Amino acid sequence: MAEISAQMIKELRTRTNAGVLNCKEALKDAGGDMEKAVDFLRKKGLATALKRAGRETSEGLIHSYIHTGGKIGVLVEVNCETDFVAKTDEFKTFVKDLAMHIAATKPLGIRREDIPEQVIQREEEIYRAQAVETGKREKILDKIVQGKMEKFYKESCLLDQQYIKDPDITTQDLIHDMITKTGENITVRRFVRYQLGE
Amino acid sequence: MAEISAQMIKELRTRTNAGVLNCKEALKDAGGDMEKAVDFLRKKGLATALKRAGRETSEGLIHSYIHTGGKIGVLVEVNCETDFVAKTDEFKTFVKDLAMHIAATKPLGIRREDIPEQVIQREEEIYRAQAVETGKREKILDKIVQGKMEKFYKESCLLDQQYIKDPDITTQDLIHDMITKTGENITVRRFVRYQLGE
Repeated sequence: MAEISAQMIKELRTRTNAGVLNCKEALKDAGGDMEKAVDFLRKKGLATALKRAGRETSEGLIHSYIHTGGKIGVLVEVNCETDFVAKTDEFKTFVKDLAMHIAATKPLGIRREDIPEQVIQREEEIYRAQAVETGKREKILDKIVQGKMEKFYKESCLLDQQYIKDPDITTQDLIHDMITKTGENITVRRFVRYQLGE
Repeated sequence: MAEISAQMIKELRTRTNAGVLNCKEALKDAGGDMEKAVDFLRKKGLATALKRAGRETSEGLIHSYIHTGGKIGVLVEVNCETDFVAKTDEFKTFVKDLAMHIAATKPLGIRREDIPEQVIQREEEIYRAQAVETGKREKILDKIVQGKMEKFYKESCLLDQQYIKDPDITTQDLIHDMITKTGENITVRRFVRYQLGE
């Protein structure tokens, strides 16, 4: 039997507006599974909050940057720990700079783990074939491919990229700088970059 | 043997900057597959355009809307046929209104086909259980579920939604209106809506 905590009941109440006892029953029936408990209450007609608002887990800013008259657009979410920091001019400028950086450099993902396996395989295969084509010896192929992949990551992963306004540092360095300045943990949560007609 | 058209060679040249004969050879080797032909040229070191820029298939605008001091953000791409129309104040206002509408109404997709099957199944199941719970007869269950799903689509699909600035029309009507005014086909290509910490 799953443990039903007061915290879980509170969360379910917030999400559904159902009463305490109903929430407790729903959670028990669902074996502690929050989504199933929500469905249980909705089926019973006891949940009045139809749209499940995503719980706010953190503070920060969502910022956009539109380039060249609407041909390129970026939307980025950057999180910090308090709304106080999110509202400072320094944080706002930082987020704006990041959005402009993304518009300019077209990263494929935030971290290396975000690059699809398929893309990585395709790159590796091409670099290997290129090396073979130019007559490189079998022994050093792996090393060459590894070196080219490092370069690929530095061009394609946001955190590995050279920061456009200061190529001596990476965007990761820029973020670390803000963490030091604000005393708060700061993360780039997600971004999207649209290019007209791509 | 796949037919290699002049159009295909032209596209491959644009994407890779390789010569005509090399492009022809690559396409033949790839059996007419454009992606494989690009890889073929890259492996041979003949493709100089490393980043494959998406071909511009249409005109339009990318626009963003940031709500409540950076807590909600929307990025939307709306296509039309010519840059001339995209640059008119009327089109700009239209795209801005659409972005604001999306921020306010939180659609799950543009069209009904964009709603994930999983979400549809979950909704149907819940509506059916609700109807059973309230003692509705078996005969009319399908009809009730169908009616509730219609309502769900009208709340969740951008084109089916009531337009926030004029609830007498849908956003689809608004788009049709712009098509009539501009004499060009207009489509909402894609959108994304971020809510802080969701």
